[in-house]
Amino acid sequence: MANYLAMNRDELTAEKAALEAKYKEFQAKGLKLNMARGKPGPHQMDLAMDLLKMNDYTTDAGTDARNYGELEGLQEARVLFADVFGVKPEEVFVGGNSSLQLMYNLVNIGYVFGFPESPCPWSQVEKRKFLCPVPGYDRHFAITEEFGFELVSVPMTPNGPDMDIVEKLVAEDPDIKGIWCVPQYSNPDGYTYSDETIERFAKMKTAAPDFKIFWDEAYIVHHLTDEIIETPVLLNESKKYGNENRVFMFTSTSKITFPGAGVSAIACSESSMKYICKRFSVMIISYDKMNQLRHVRFLKNKEGVLAHMAKHRRRLVPCFDAVKTAFKNNLIPCGDIAHWTDPKGGYFISLYVMPGCAKRVAGLCKDAGLTLTGAGSAYPYHKDPEDSHLRIAPTYPSLDEVETASELLCICVRLAVAEKLLADKAD
Amino acid sequence: MANYLAMNRDELTAEKAALEAKYKEFQAKGLKLNMARGKPGPHQMDLAMDLLKMNDYTTDAGTDARNYGELEGLQEARVLFADVFGVKPEEVFVGGNSSLQLMYNLVNIGYVFGFPESPCPWSQVEKRKFLCPVPGYDRHFAITEEFGFELVSVPMTPNGPDMDIVEKLVAEDPDIKGIWCVPQYSNPDGYTYSDETIERFAKMKTAAPDFKIFWDEAYIVHHLTDEIIETPVLLNESKKYGNENRVFMFTSTSKITFPGAGVSAIACSESSMKYICKRFSVMIISYDKMNQLRHVRFLKNKEGVLAHMAKHRRRLVPCFDAVKTAFKNNLIPCGDIAHWTDPKGGYFISLYVMPGCAKRVAGLCKDAGLTLTGAGSAYPYHKDPEDSHLRIAPTYPSLDEVETASELLCICVRLAVAEKLLADKAD
Repeated sequence: MANYLAMNRDELTAEKAALEAKYKEFQAKGLKLNMARGKPGPHQMDLAMDLLKMNDYTTDAGTDARNYGELEGLQEARVLFADVFGVKPEEVFVGGNSSLQLMYNLVNIGYVFGFPESPCPWSQVEKRKFLCPVPGYDRHFAITEEFGFELVSVPMTPNGPDMDIVEKLVAEDPDIKGIWCVPQYSNPDGYTYSDETIERFAKMKTAAPDFKIFWDEAYIVHHLTDEIIETPVLLNESKKYGNENRVFMFTSTSKITFPGAGVSAIACSESSMKYICKRFSVMIISYDKMNQLRHVRFLKNKEGVLAHMAKHRRRLVPCFDAVKTAFKNNLIPCGDIAHWTDPKGGYFISLYVMPGCAKRVAGLCKDAGLTLTGAGSAYPYHKDPEDSHLRIAPTYPSLDEVETASELLCICVRLAVAEKLLADKAD
Repeated sequence: MANYLAMNRDELTAEKAALEAKYKEFQAKGLKLNMARGKPGPHQMDLAMDLLKMNDYTTDAGTDARNYGELEGLQEARVLFADVFGVKPEEVFVGGNSSLQLMYNLVNIGYVFGFPESPCPWSQVEKRKFLCPVPGYDRHFAITEEFGFELVSVPMTPNGPDMDIVEKLVAEDPDIKGIWCVPQYSNPDGYTYSDETIERFAKMKTAAPDFKIFWDEAYIVHHLTDEIIETPVLLNESKKYGNENRVFMFTSTSKITFPGAGVSAIACSESSMKYICKRFSVMIISYDKMNQLRHVRFLKNKEGVLAHMAKHRRRLVPCFDAVKTAFKNNLIPCGDIAHWTDPKGGYFISLYVMPGCAKRVAGLCKDAGLTLTGAGSAYPYHKDPEDSHLRIAPTYPSLDEVETASELLCICVRLAVAEKLLADKAD
């Protein structure tokens, strides 16, 4: 291996031929590997099987968790999530198995009814816009796209979204109604917002009185190193500036217990809580409190959550290591053809390949039996202007499979780059 | 006791004094009884405790119910509900713990996006209307009220809504976008729609191409007699006239297993299914399939459901009997001061007191420690034009409590009527 960027036409042609041979070997294996979505693997879900032994139905207050009632969630569940968020139990709403659904519900409420601070429902704002730090989470972007918002990209940095740009946009344009954020171990880069970024979110001036920060703490306890990273709590910081109604924080146990059968939660101001409970009460009598109680009995408190997450970490670190080691050994020697993030937590590694190559890499992988998230997915409208980004999710496959997939992925990256460089030379 | 309507002023005054004395005795007891909501009692929920022993997570297809995926529900859960509905599994969507939330979601979809047949989203229909058979279910009405529909009352009959009126209204007015129905053991009357009514719903002409029937089969297997009443299946009947996209049927296990932790389902045409899955996929990745699997393993099939419902019936029949016997013994002798329904299933008895007395009865009950659903709740905007209707829910209290509550209720009815008759004579 040598620096691709220094190769001449003949060298590149030879390299391409060698890669094609290796690629065909992989194709012959008939692989069926998937690194597309942030899905926990079976061995991770096995860690929570004791959850199912928790069959009690009497709450601490003596009520019956099997029956209707307590829309805002069981008190003990609110206490648990308050502990995880770093807020007060009265500021917590505990829902069903999907935090994505809670986010959708709140965008929907803004769209149909508006919030107490809204001059009008968002549906009546003709050029409504939502800020999308990029790369970001495709399902977030899809919600606001569904409701007809223009998705405005804001570049991510290792400290969070570029706040100079965010502050300028929200100060000037009252049609910008909110922003999607994954502040800890961001999806897909794995960056954690700096204290300064959080402070700037808390205090920034917004032209829209009903600007909302959708702050998805999907990975708040999903550490991949010994370091337990804890950042200032946006809701609490916002209170210092009287901006607490701007904040909706979310989390869930989807990547703590069971992805499809966990518990989700919102943290917001008590004033927002009152408003959303009024709206939610028309939609649903109460969420599954048996599952809430099961989770409280199993996880107990934040300490219990962290102890459980340490078990996940032990199982995930080797998978992340396999990917990063493959990249280091197979891509760095080729010169500046790709770079990637080194997350301290979360579920993803961002791989940035030479611009113009990401789609080709994903296509090559697919044709050899390795599914990646579609290139461009992390950008509004699935359009990566550079065609450079790929989101790598190393959690679901087994370690053996991750090793194989990483090797194949590196060959695909190198092959796509060699093709590109040859094509460029032909121009 | 004698016929109140035949009493003169002095006789009524004496009767009223006697009733007041009895009423005070009840007040002195410091009762705390609740017949307000259709809530199963603890002894009913205990019947389903084996549900919690079902801790398997491998589906019949070999997939893992703990993980993300299968938005439309587990195949075996679709089969179970198809069996209950009397439709095909491909026509069933299995959701979370709340059928009310599914109804809300669908009204919301109509409002924001419209349906494939819609000339425009319902939000753009300025004078949008929804038909509400009365008396009906307050939470149904509240959803369409929340979305700004004018709620148009249609009188109920023992055979279902007055179809002459329904047909006329929907044929003439394209702004009428749907109707709320509880076709079996209706809430609150306990009436079951006749075969003719169902047929007329299936074939009626609607001015709105996107007219939707919200057909809430909340009590589809909730029989209170030996008779297993089964009616034509609206979705199947509608196909005969090419109107299958008009139908959304709903049910849930809320009153089969656990009210707060059951499983809900929709039945609709495959074409509607495709559309709603597309919309729902933006909102949620998948519902709690562990709870779906638990329910399938526990209930097994329709036969299993009916066997389980027979256990409920044995426990509920005495409570309904207590109410009806109290009415018969204490109200009939007083003449035509009240009448009530005799449901063959469901969760409620409708009590119609002399017009102008319902609110007073509910108030008297409340002041003696018996909570009823607020008078008027079964009507749009909570306004019973006759002030006559009360919905009696005899399931949640113990049999002893139902007996006491029924006795108190009869005294309150008679007292309110005596007061009314005296006031009328004073006029």
